[in-house]
Amino acid sequence: MGITDTAFVESVRMAGLAADAGAAAVVLAPPYYFAPSQTELLEYLEHLVRQLPLPLFLYNQPSQTKVPFEIDTVRQAAELPGVVGIKDSSANMIYFHRLVALFQDRPDFTLLIGPEELLAEAVLLGGHGGVSGGANLHPRLYVQLYEAARDHDLDHVAALHGQVLRISSGLYTLGGYGAGVSKGLKCALSILGICVDFLAEPFPRLDPSQRTRVEQQLRDLGLLSG
Amino acid sequence: MGITDTAFVESVRMAGLAADAGAAAVVLAPPYYFAPSQTELLEYLEHLVRQLPLPLFLYNQPSQTKVPFEIDTVRQAAELPGVVGIKDSSANMIYFHRLVALFQDRPDFTLLIGPEELLAEAVLLGGHGGVSGGANLHPRLYVQLYEAARDHDLDHVAALHGQVLRISSGLYTLGGYGAGVSKGLKCALSILGICVDFLAEPFPRLDPSQRTRVEQQLRDLGLLSG
Repeated sequence: MGITDTAFVESVRMAGLAADAGAAAVVLAPPYYFAPSQTELLEYLEHLVRQLPLPLFLYNQPSQTKVPFEIDTVRQAAELPGVVGIKDSSANMIYFHRLVALFQDRPDFTLLIGPEELLAEAVLLGGHGGVSGGANLHPRLYVQLYEAARDHDLDHVAALHGQVLRISSGLYTLGGYGAGVSKGLKCALSILGICVDFLAEPFPRLDPSQRTRVEQQLRDLGLLSG
Repeated sequence: MGITDTAFVESVRMAGLAADAGAAAVVLAPPYYFAPSQTELLEYLEHLVRQLPLPLFLYNQPSQTKVPFEIDTVRQAAELPGVVGIKDSSANMIYFHRLVALFQDRPDFTLLIGPEELLAEAVLLGGHGGVSGGANLHPRLYVQLYEAARDHDLDHVAALHGQVLRISSGLYTLGGYGAGVSKGLKCALSILGICVDFLAEPFPRLDPSQRTRVEQQLRDLGLLSG
């Protein structure tokens, strides 16, 4: 469960809620209003992990937070008790490959890729998996892609990767701007009856004409009949 | 009082606390995790102002929020009931001058500059004032600078502006990074016995050697004897 916040106490509080709800781990991006230095970020992690009831994944998401977890910060953070891995959503595969190289002798430190469009190459080249938004919509597809990449079955990877890209290009670009993935996914999930398409302020749901296009995409994917 | 938050309900809640505490107005920067479009930002303001018990200043602070209030968004927001002005901390004086020009026939819409290093030129060229961090430390200096600029007393402006720049260069750069102003100011205020120098995570207070340098600066400013 995500515990990213600009307030230290809120992150601690959310981690407690996550533990009470049965979560296995929490994930945390850097505080994202005033930009900390890497030294400050590491000290913050040292202070925080002592107060967390669950294992912690770092969340590298610089397009939202402005501040990355630099490679050397990840190296030092991985020595802290309770820090068990990283989710990298930078979409910078050079960064991800450097993590794979750095932790090649630490298979216990889990390297997950955020963007599902990069899941194939991340797993083919040594990553351990991904946190794929689209798996909320079509979990089998993402599990199969992971398994094909893990098994180095490149023909199968290519076909499944192509399907993931079609979902991404068709669904996540409709709403534009920073929250396009959430807009597209929530709209699709609401059509399938899994959740409503309400988004938190300041983001509106997709409009009726966009919703019609999402319905067509769900039919093309075989997820919606009629 | 600042009510900036990534959660709509928290901004509303803080505005209520501000009203209860006797504040005259609240100030709000854009939500700063996922980046909204200007259209989304304006709709967000429309929704928010209906729930605020106090007048609202916009807070343009793109280095922290990634997203500015673009000029045309300010123009439209100024038509909303309860939106009474803007604090501009972009340090982009072209932007500020454009605001002055846009609102030249709206003297009721208050144009405030954030960075105190820009207070002189902002007021000399049509702005209404500033929100100067250093005024917590040395209020008379900033009031005098404002009055000299308002009265077009350029000799006086130059001398006072020079003192403001010395505070800025000496005090705000010691802590480096995004929160340097807060680190320097809180250290100085703690030396003067006005508040403690604790900063919220992830930011540490200045170290003892930096604190010694701040003490010397306070003596040079005539704010500390001995």
